[in-house]
Amino acid sequence: MLRLKCESNAGWAPAAVADLDTLLIDHVHCEKKAASTALSLINRYPEKTLLVDHMIVHAQEELEHFALVLGYLKERGTGLRRDSADPYVNQLLEHARRNEPQRLLDSLIVAALIEARSCERFQLLVDALPPGDLRDLFDGLMPSEARHFTMFLTLAREYFAAEEVERRLEEYTVIEAGIVRGLRDEPRMHG
Amino acid sequence: MLRLKCESNAGWAPAAVADLDTLLIDHVHCEKKAASTALSLINRYPEKTLLVDHMIVHAQEELEHFALVLGYLKERGTGLRRDSADPYVNQLLEHARRNEPQRLLDSLIVAALIEARSCERFQLLVDALPPGDLRDLFDGLMPSEARHFTMFLTLAREYFAAEEVERRLEEYTVIEAGIVRGLRDEPRMHG
Repeated sequence: MLRLKCESNAGWAPAAVADLDTLLIDHVHCEKKAASTALSLINRYPEKTLLVDHMIVHAQEELEHFALVLGYLKERGTGLRRDSADPYVNQLLEHARRNEPQRLLDSLIVAALIEARSCERFQLLVDALPPGDLRDLFDGLMPSEARHFTMFLTLAREYFAAEEVERRLEEYTVIEAGIVRGLRDEPRMHG
Repeated sequence: MLRLKCESNAGWAPAAVADLDTLLIDHVHCEKKAASTALSLINRYPEKTLLVDHMIVHAQEELEHFALVLGYLKERGTGLRRDSADPYVNQLLEHARRNEPQRLLDSLIVAALIEARSCERFQLLVDALPPGDLRDLFDGLMPSEARHFTMFLTLAREYFAAEEVERRLEEYTVIEAGIVRGLRDEPRMHG
């Protein structure tokens, strides 16, 4: 359903679970960046009403998750640290086209794939973690990521022909799989 | 209470009320920019827990207002348009210091003054508008702006000595008044 062409490398989940503080800090920043991306899409396409409506709800939901995950971090006695570059997202964006309307299509597909990969990784975390609060957290967040994946693709199909969305999605899933296979196994949501 | 050193020019409220669509579009973008600013403060100062906690709530509240005002705009049959430069905010930021920790203090004071000026202008709109939904909207939003003004100053006093905050606030209110007196009377929240 998520259209991903490969699973995360086998070493990722053990690396993530071995340093949960670092993973959660990265996760908080991912939620923040998702909200920022939603706002920047509103900025770029203010006249696209359906997009704006979805992005405002999306930004609100990501901020709720930000607060939720930050709460878990605090309970562990850990504070937020500075955000670092996200090699996964940066590599995905390197392949995005710069001219409209392709820029919009690629933005929506990249956003969809980030959500899909997060969803896959939440499942890996649920499988790797012992029963408890943190496992419940990721288990609880998983349906949102799947829903967001669908939402971004539905938006893409609103503004582009279904065949064009399908073709570019197919290309981008290949790109995404190549990027994921090349990532180092780090305690990061997308690291 | 809001510490402003001058009222808005007498021509502003009539200009604003004469083109409510343009005013509301600008207002929606102001709420969006306030949320973005909150996220960028989290980015810059992730280790300042109190600041992060307030900014996440603040961003959420500004997004709620964004959705609320956008709803009014839609009811009027008007869509969002592209955001344009905000001469008031840009001029305020020109006076902000670039080096830490002064950069943080100036960011908080600028944010406080923007909230204070919004609050003053909401009152002017309430006075200028006939009874109805829009007047109720601005009347309903006013207390938030006053509360945000206080919140930003409270944060400033958390991270800086009270006398330093007072001295810089006093300087900045003079700067702000000079900027407001020089603004053209436009249908913009800060225009």
